[in-house]
Formats: sequence, structure tokens, C-alpha cells
Amino acid sequence: MNLDNAGAARRLMARLDEFAQFTDEPGRLTRLYLSPSYRRACERLAEWMLAIGLEPEIDPAGNVHARYEGRKPGAPALMVGSHIDTVRDAGRYDGNLGALAALAVVEQLAESGERLDHAIDVVAFGDEEGVRFPTTMTGSRALAGLVPADALGKRDADGITLREALTKFGGDPERLFALRARGIAAFVELHIEQGPVLEAEGLALGTVAAINGATRLAATVQGLAGHAGAVPMALRQDALAAASEMILAIEARARKESDLVATVGRIDAEPGAINVIPGLVRFSIDIRAPRDEWRRRAVSDIATALQAIADRRKIDLVLAPTHEAKAYVCDPRIVAGFDAALVAVGQKPFHLPSGAGHDTMVMGQICPAGMLFVRCKGGISHNPAESITSEDCALALAALTRFVRDFRV
Amino acid sequence: MNLDNAGAARRLMARLDEFAQFTDEPGRLTRLYLSPSYRRACERLAEWMLAIGLEPEIDPAGNVHARYEGRKPGAPALMVGSHIDTVRDAGRYDGNLGALAALAVVEQLAESGERLDHAIDVVAFGDEEGVRFPTTMTGSRALAGLVPADALGKRDADGITLREALTKFGGDPERLFALRARGIAAFVELHIEQGPVLEAEGLALGTVAAINGATRLAATVQGLAGHAGAVPMALRQDALAAASEMILAIEARARKESDLVATVGRIDAEPGAINVIPGLVRFSIDIRAPRDEWRRRAVSDIATALQAIADRRKIDLVLAPTHEAKAYVCDPRIVAGFDAALVAVGQKPFHLPSGAGHDTMVMGQICPAGMLFVRCKGGISHNPAESITSEDCALALAALTRFVRDFRV
Repeated sequence: MNLDNAGAARRLMARLDEFAQFTDEPGRLTRLYLSPSYRRACERLAEWMLAIGLEPEIDPAGNVHARYEGRKPGAPALMVGSHIDTVRDAGRYDGNLGALAALAVVEQLAESGERLDHAIDVVAFGDEEGVRFPTTMTGSRALAGLVPADALGKRDADGITLREALTKFGGDPERLFALRARGIAAFVELHIEQGPVLEAEGLALGTVAAINGATRLAATVQGLAGHAGAVPMALRQDALAAASEMILAIEARARKESDLVATVGRIDAEPGAINVIPGLVRFSIDIRAPRDEWRRRAVSDIATALQAIADRRKIDLVLAPTHEAKAYVCDPRIVAGFDAALVAVGQKPFHLPSGAGHDTMVMGQICPAGMLFVRCKGGISHNPAESITSEDCALALAALTRFVRDFRV
Repeated sequence: MNLDNAGAARRLMARLDEFAQFTDEPGRLTRLYLSPSYRRACERLAEWMLAIGLEPEIDPAGNVHARYEGRKPGAPALMVGSHIDTVRDAGRYDGNLGALAALAVVEQLAESGERLDHAIDVVAFGDEEGVRFPTTMTGSRALAGLVPADALGKRDADGITLREALTKFGGDPERLFALRARGIAAFVELHIEQGPVLEAEGLALGTVAAINGATRLAATVQGLAGHAGAVPMALRQDALAAASEMILAIEARARKESDLVATVGRIDAEPGAINVIPGLVRFSIDIRAPRDEWRRRAVSDIATALQAIADRRKIDLVLAPTHEAKAYVCDPRIVAGFDAALVAVGQKPFHLPSGAGHDTMVMGQICPAGMLFVRCKGGISHNPAESITSEDCALALAALTRFVRDFRV
């Protein structure tokens, strides 16, 4: 099997290169949900599915599916896949690796005419990245019956609604709410790590133990603007100095607990002139943890610490929640299955949380679900520099194949 | 004299209100150097000068002057004034108060037919604010022979050069370099404080001891961008967390020394997304002190502290100087003269540095010079909320008049 797997991995890497040509922007990879290049990618994937005798379908949410039946037609299916939309100026592995690897697993079975006890559903989702519309994971949500009621009215930057985009794509938007994954026993997803943990550990693969929950807050710090030369230090209510102290308090709290992360990614100081003390600073806070109770405790501690800083500096602070997502603890049987698959391909089991959200979180609402992470260079993703090695790709494909073969409904 | 002074102060406040109507932007005060509203302001001031028998001149730099001769024609003059250009959306007192107060002092003398031993030059400068062109204090620099050689080629936001603007204004741009203040014994300027010190001290007036020198630096902090969920705290090189620690170090150093101030007014974090660890942060540093050696020591200490933070966090730091201005220590005789004038009008002497630059710095290069500050509400300037009381205006006018009367060449 090793040689076959190596050949399949080479084909997979070549297809990922080819797939990266489907872009909305010449010279860089940007494949937004339901765009013309997204359509071409769907069609190319469907061609590959057809070539091995599957019957691909592009569903009303823009997902591509094909079922590889088990020994008994109609057997429950293990769904395997990931997303094929990308961020702007993306790397070629985020999402696409998992979708095309799912096809590669089935391809190996189909080419040898082998059937398993269970069916396999290969799936490629759209809108995981949530870049085009103010929506996210519309593809997997549709399969899980979790599309928000107001989704169709959401508009992209050109003012096009999701309803219009789905219609133009060729589907019936109303069917978005009626779609359901049927006969699915479980869902698994192979994905690049998008972080530096596996690289730091010297490991190619890791089993995702949980997908972190997240809280996002918008902080508004109101001090008093003033002339940079004319207001003595003792009389200042500098909103940026206050915000700086808050950012360090956020960092310090997150450092106290492993697997918890907190990030200030956006900051804006007004009026933003060299010679004016900032009177108003806005910044974002993103707090994630694999357990909701850890995250809630951190959010509470951070709010308390920030208010104390504001009080001491005579600054007004408003913290407004802008987003909350619960953690998804991966299904223990799937975690155990990936651990066994890692051992089978010669790697020690290793668990890590996923800091990013994934379609697995959504699919986990309707069936057991889990993920396998593959090391990516420098932990870099959402960037053209995103990179994996051929060796890691081969090992990931071998482990995914082993998982699929050993899966029991 | 008190009653006369109160009447003169009322007239001065009324004129400041009228003057505020000369604006480039309806509904708010914006009077940019050499603009049509700047021209109208010059002409109105010239009318008031004419009305008391002076011979006003608008010089090739766009300054308005008039000399009130002393007992002996041709006696050396005390020059008194300030600027009449404004920032965008300005207050009505910054600059204008000092220019119109100079006229008010002479007006009182002229109306009673009184001559002093010395002449008085009333002056209203242009371009103190440096808002229209990337130049500053062109008016006073021209009188001091300090206009930079490349000034005429500088362009405003519409692409108009200073040369074109001066020509359109009616002057001969080349004469900018030949202008010189002649027969000037000293220069004094009344100005709003633009800071909260006098208000905090409960005093209407203060003698400016020095105009702070300034160093500006552009800081570039290069860390490593990464996924806000996927990079554990221990593996981060967060440019914004590093910058926050630097901003607090800057604040801490400035707090250690009274009369020294340091400000981070501008900050920009890239890529600036909620879910991405900032990889690059740029911020400005503005450091001011009334003594150049204090400022240089602070700049050096801050550079050392910031580099230590960068080293500890494995972050690259580049500090690039963008601007340096030396402090101007006000002439001791003028400082003493204002102190005596304060006592004469019933206030205790009080010294403070000026954090902002002023035409006095420039005039101080060619003659003894000094300033008197008047309290402004909340320390607010460069804002329509800029405000002084009628009582403070009357006291300021009385003190300035006393200074002018008691001045000896």
C-alpha cells in the first residue's frame, strides 16, 4: 500500500496545484463562495468524481458531493471532506487539501474495485471562510439544517444578496433550508493545522481534540484628546496608553492557561495625529479555548482587569460582545480512530485543539465528527506562503485512508 | 485704566467673533494660509489698522504689519502679534487672539494719542499652523530670513505650489527670501495655552519660560502574523503586544521627569483583522522638553528601553527620526517683564513651558522674544470648543498693555 499511497499523494499534490488556478483574481488565489472560479472548481472536482464512476451532485448550497457506495447499497456513509472556497490571496491547501484528499481515498478504493461495509460521502463545502458574505459555513450549515433564517438577504461588497448569488449559481435558494445530509454515520475532515504546534513538536500529524470556542469583544476606550506638547503627563487621560495596558493584561491572562489564546488584532486610535494625545481607541478582542467554561472564565477575568485599568486611569471603557461560538469537543470514537490511524502509519498519537473554526463544528451538531491536522510550514495559512511537504501529504493521506478503512458504523 | 481695558477687551472679544466668520468652509472655521478667507481676514485687519491712523502693509509672505511710531520716528520697535491662519475646524482664539490683542494695545494708545519711547509693530503671521503646505511658519520665517530654500516648490493637497499661491495672493514669491524684519528690538506674543496647566493651577495667565524642543520618531515593530486561534501564546511574536509594552515604557519614562512629555498619537496594526495576530505595527513617538539635553536623554532612554522589549520578545524594531526642533528658552528680560506685568495686574507670576511650537521660536532667532499664555477652557484647542473667558481676556490685554508700556529697548 505504501507505494500506491505515495503515488496517490503525488497525484493529490498535483491536483492541488491545478486547483489553485481556479481564482477570481489573476496572479493570486482568491476563490470566493459562488464566484465563477468557485463554479469552475466545483465542475473540475465533479469531473474527477465522474472519472471513477461516482455520480457527483452540486447541491443548492453550492456543495459538491458524491457517494461511493459500500458493499450493500444504501449503507450508512462516513462523510469525508472539507471546503473549497478560499480567503483572498490564499494558500492552496486550506480546505482544498481535505476535499481533494477525501476524493483520493475513494479513488484508491474505486481503482482497485474495493468496497467497504459503509459508504463514503466525499464532500466539498462552500462558504467556510465567510469572506464574501457576512455569513459563514453556509455549505455545511445547509447540510445540518442550521442556516440562519436571514441568510438569503445578506449582501456581498457589491450589494449582491446570497439569494441572488445562489440563483445565478444555478440553484433554488429556498432549497437551502430544506437540504439535509442523509444517512450520515459520521463526518471527518483533514485540514492543515494553520498554526505552528505540530512543527514545533516535530510531528507531521495530530488529532484534533476540540475546536475552540470563541468570544469576540469590541472594546471602546474613551479618554481625552489633547495637544501632545501642551498637556503634562500627570493631567493626561491617554486612551492609547490605557489600551496598551489593557492589551498587555489580555496577553498576561491568556498566558496563564495553556490551550487558551487571546488576541487583539485590530486597533484604531483617534484622532490619529502625531501631535495629538489619542482621545478614543477601539480594539478587538478574540478569546478562544477548547472548553467553554475556561473561555467564559477568561472573558470574565479580562473584563475585570480592563475595568480596573480604566478606573485607575479615569478612562471610560465599553466592552461589547460581537460574536460567540461554543467549543466543539470532537467525538471520542473518532479521536480514538485517528489516534489508531497515526500509530498505524508510524507516528505517535498527539492531540491539539483547533484554534480556527471548521465545518466539523457544524457537522458535529448532527453526527459524530472529528479532524486530523497536518503540519504546515511556519504555521502559516491564509497566505500564498502556505506550504506542506509531499512527505507529510503522503502520511496524512495514508492515515486518512487507514481511518476510513477501519471505521465502523 | 481698568474701565478702558474692560471696554477694549469687550471690543477684542467681539472682533474675534467677527474674525471667525472668515473661513474657507461654511459652518466651521478653517482659514488656510493664502486662501480667499485668509485674504479677507488680512484685509479686515488692515481696515482696523487704517482706522486708527496706521499704515498697514500686507507683505510678500502674506503677513499683515503696521507700525505705531514712538515719540521719535524711527525708534526701534517692539513687535507684538501672532498668526491668523488656522487649522481645519479650528477654534477662534488660537493665533487670532494674539494678533488682534496686539492691535488692541496700540488702539488704546492711538485713541488717547499717547506715544511711547519705542515704536510698536503689530504683526499677523501666516502659515504658523503648517496645515496647507508641508511648510510651517513661513510668515515669521520670512521676517527672520529663515525660509527653507525649497519652500516655493512645496505643494498643497490640490497640487498648487507655494509659489503659485503667493503669486495668486498678489505678491512676488522671490521676495520671500529678501524680506527681513527691520529695526526690531524684541518680539512678544500673547497666545492661548492650548493645555490644561493654567486651569489646573487656577490662574488666568502664565509666562512662557521656554518653547519645548521636539523629537519625532517613527517606530516599526515587525513580529509574525498568525491565526488568532491557532498559534499558542508561547509561540507568538505579536507585534501589537510588543508595541503596547513599548507605549507603556515611553509613558513611564516621560512621567519620571516634570516638563517632559512623550506621546504616541498614531498607531497602525497590520493586517488589522480580528482573527489575525498583528505581524507589523507602526507608531509615532513625539517627545518634547523645554531643555534640549533633557529631551535628548529621554530619546536615548526610550530607544534603549524599546530595544530591550523588542529583544526579549524576539521582535524587530526600527526607530527612524522624522523631525527634530530645538527648544527656545525665552529671553530672560522678557520673562521678567511679563512676570512684572502679571504682578501689576494682580496675579502671581507663574512660569510654564509651551509644548506647542510658535512664531516666537522663529522670531527668537533674530531678537529677544517671549510669550504670555492665557488660560483656555479644558486646555482644548484646534477645536471649535476652544474657549476663553471675557475676564481672562481682559486680564491678558491688561498684562500685555502693561508689558508694552514698561518695555525698555
